[in-house]
Amino acid sequence: MKSEKLSTIGESGLISMIADTLERFDDEELFKGIGDDCAVLKNRCDENYTLLTTDMLVEGDHFDRDWQDPWQIGWKSIIVNISDIAAMGGLPRWGLISIAFPEDTTVSFTEELFRGMVSASDKHGLKLVGGDTTHGDSLIINIALIGEVEEENLCMRRDAETGDLICVSGDLGKSWAGLELFRSGKKGYTEYYLKPECRLELGRELAPYVNAMIDVSDGLASEVIHISEESGVGAEIEKSKVPISERTKETGELLGKDPLKWALSGGEDFELVFTIPPDRLDRIEKFEPIVVGRIIEEGLYLIHDDGRKDRLEGGYDHFA
Amino acid sequence: MKSEKLSTIGESGLISMIADTLERFDDEELFKGIGDDCAVLKNRCDENYTLLTTDMLVEGDHFDRDWQDPWQIGWKSIIVNISDIAAMGGLPRWGLISIAFPEDTTVSFTEELFRGMVSASDKHGLKLVGGDTTHGDSLIINIALIGEVEEENLCMRRDAETGDLICVSGDLGKSWAGLELFRSGKKGYTEYYLKPECRLELGRELAPYVNAMIDVSDGLASEVIHISEESGVGAEIEKSKVPISERTKETGELLGKDPLKWALSGGEDFELVFTIPPDRLDRIEKFEPIVVGRIIEEGLYLIHDDGRKDRLEGGYDHFA
Repeated sequence: MKSEKLSTIGESGLISMIADTLERFDDEELFKGIGDDCAVLKNRCDENYTLLTTDMLVEGDHFDRDWQDPWQIGWKSIIVNISDIAAMGGLPRWGLISIAFPEDTTVSFTEELFRGMVSASDKHGLKLVGGDTTHGDSLIINIALIGEVEEENLCMRRDAETGDLICVSGDLGKSWAGLELFRSGKKGYTEYYLKPECRLELGRELAPYVNAMIDVSDGLASEVIHISEESGVGAEIEKSKVPISERTKETGELLGKDPLKWALSGGEDFELVFTIPPDRLDRIEKFEPIVVGRIIEEGLYLIHDDGRKDRLEGGYDHFA
Repeated sequence: MKSEKLSTIGESGLISMIADTLERFDDEELFKGIGDDCAVLKNRCDENYTLLTTDMLVEGDHFDRDWQDPWQIGWKSIIVNISDIAAMGGLPRWGLISIAFPEDTTVSFTEELFRGMVSASDKHGLKLVGGDTTHGDSLIINIALIGEVEEENLCMRRDAETGDLICVSGDLGKSWAGLELFRSGKKGYTEYYLKPECRLELGRELAPYVNAMIDVSDGLASEVIHISEESGVGAEIEKSKVPISERTKETGELLGKDPLKWALSGGEDFELVFTIPPDRLDRIEKFEPIVVGRIIEEGLYLIHDDGRKDRLEGGYDHFA
């Protein structure tokens, strides 16, 4: 049992195991530890919460120097982290950067990498204030962010309620489409993959109205399953309502692949997935939410066009 | 110029370049960004400061699975980070862990790794509240810590004054001695290398009395140079006063190497180096400070036993 590989327990097994090992303490300031996009601390001096999040990007897994230029790698490393703050309804404040540089890294590569990080940070009001540099066999980037959110804006995975509509903020599968193009050596719609955006402003606008919220880093299916597990509810997604752009569909045709799979299990779109009671939907209409399903009492389903139901399967697993 | 490798500008050149790229903003809450053991933020609601620090540990560079067991790797990854908080006179509060696991990682290895992290954290009052796990070719661990320090205890590299004594908190070279033993395949004094300690409690005791403080991560010479650069002063270190234990000396004899080099340029001893005005030394006498030199107006010197002076050379450089 103990000599088994991490791949046998998968990413979710690993995270449960870590949570069991770490969370053996009570602390009145710790509002939520492992299990959401950010750890959430209750501020001592005001009604706000402090948000903590970190993401590690590994060459070959999260980016590829053959496809992405250093500016784009730097940009992405910040965006993926801000996206976790956006999913809580918060604002990023301070950032720490750690990088392991391979021996062949040039000064100009490094400068461009940092320029990309600074551009993404400036756009979203994040201030990069420190870090660590070391040597590695491949390029590894870790970003840790400190953010903040007001009590009335704090959105968590655990607050979905039966009857809520499940909405997404925009097209899905667009990042994975670009990745598949690079993998196959073909040209096409790679712009979003190369320069993903996060929905920070939208997260702030939605926060007062939604129940649960999460960002799409591992695909819609995976994110809905996270909401379901944390909220103790079920969910169903209507296949026909999953928003996939024309350009992503064309890419699917070009490569002979199903773009719905990219939307459900690809990830890195950094759109927001949120749940909202139907009678509150009109409050956020101007943000053009795309209703893709609903929260139910139990079970996780993907509903086909003919009404047939399949079990909703999880998304990208780093260890599977 | 731009196509040159990072190794040509070295770690300090890299850090200057990063500081130039990042620090283009003023913020009344940012008390100190890059250039100390932690970034320092002024709290809005009380007189305390928030400390932010991060350290990345790379397999092969910072630890070796052939020499260290997973518990020891986990322990060390936390200790090196808490040591940065200790150097500011602060206390660690919250921690985020990011890990890239190689494919062959077992469940039991992972459990032991986290147990080591938890032991080090429990010992020093740190609470691990979140993180990120991913896949990598080698084991990479990044820790980000949030700490806190009262205004009267905040110690920085930049506050050394001419005339201050330079002191260290304990034996140096002891960690490098163990590393050299493993590298040479010989047995001997490896205990400290395998389970380093940090001087958190001592840092708290010293904080009210010292001017500048830093921890020994890259060797005494390197740390004294950091203090000198940040404070705009010079420094001289007396070779004969650098504390090296009998066991470290014996290791040097066994391997035919000079343990003074390990003390000056090896690193990872995680002792504290601090400067204090001579008339304040009696206030910290019970902590048995070891005076190794003094702060002078300019220049960096190593004083030999016969009074001859050499230039004090820097310590371990990840990029040299």
